[in-house]
Amino acid sequence: MNKKLGVFVAAGLLSIVSTSAMAQFAKADDAVEYREAAMTLMSSHFGRMGPVVKKEIPYNKEQIKENVALLNRLAALPWAAYAPGTEGGRAKPEVWSDAEGFKQAKVKYLDSLKPLTVAADAGDFDALRVAFGNTAKSCKACHDSYRAKKK
Amino acid sequence: MNKKLGVFVAAGLLSIVSTSAMAQFAKADDAVEYREAAMTLMSSHFGRMGPVVKKEIPYNKEQIKENVALLNRLAALPWAAYAPGTEGGRAKPEVWSDAEGFKQAKVKYLDSLKPLTVAADAGDFDALRVAFGNTAKSCKACHDSYRAKKK
Repeated sequence: MNKKLGVFVAAGLLSIVSTSAMAQFAKADDAVEYREAAMTLMSSHFGRMGPVVKKEIPYNKEQIKENVALLNRLAALPWAAYAPGTEGGRAKPEVWSDAEGFKQAKVKYLDSLKPLTVAADAGDFDALRVAFGNTAKSCKACHDSYRAKKK
Repeated sequence: MNKKLGVFVAAGLLSIVSTSAMAQFAKADDAVEYREAAMTLMSSHFGRMGPVVKKEIPYNKEQIKENVALLNRLAALPWAAYAPGTEGGRAKPEVWSDAEGFKQAKVKYLDSLKPLTVAADAGDFDALRVAFGNTAKSCKACHDSYRAKKK
């Protein structure tokens, strides 16, 4: 598809989104900015638990529980911002050319949050450590395949 | 305060944060990136209600209610990332030199979300429009005083 046609099709798709429901992104750049912002917040709220699971700072059950609840809320956000026609930012073209693989990586990540949440809610530190490691692996696997290096 | 001393004090403050609770930001740049990401998501979830209150697209009570709930969750996030020693990004120096004014602007914004939430939960479209306008004003007032233009 040539670039002009691509932009035209993208605009069409975004316009379909806009008219069928509450508009999410007026233009592709907005989608890029949005999904990268959501990833930044997820990364921050996941990463700050690292020193806890490494036993560098004390485990505070309520704090971890609240943080994991927020992580779950944030984890729902970025995916709508990878609609066709929103290529760009750190997303590799494979996000769209291998949409099925990207979807599976996303599902693997979201599934990994379930045992993390169960452990956080129960205050089970050992289970939390295992679940944290598995979520970290699912983040890395998806980034390795679908995220370009920082420019 | 000279720059080197500033960085030293900043590192000290961040280190206090790190040891007293779950670490939030390992370095000032992380705080800048975090608060700007939170603002991006807030802006997106607030802005997408614009066409609804302007009656350009249909009002869907459940969709607005859910969106305002998310907006409330996001609205709690950025403030911890304006700790002393995290100057930079689009934050004007006034955020720190006029900390009391910034705090008041923040409170005004958070207060403005209460009637917005009541209206959204009740499905009261007219009240929603009024509340939306007041929140928009509080966003603009804070940005005018404390946010620099995009580089």
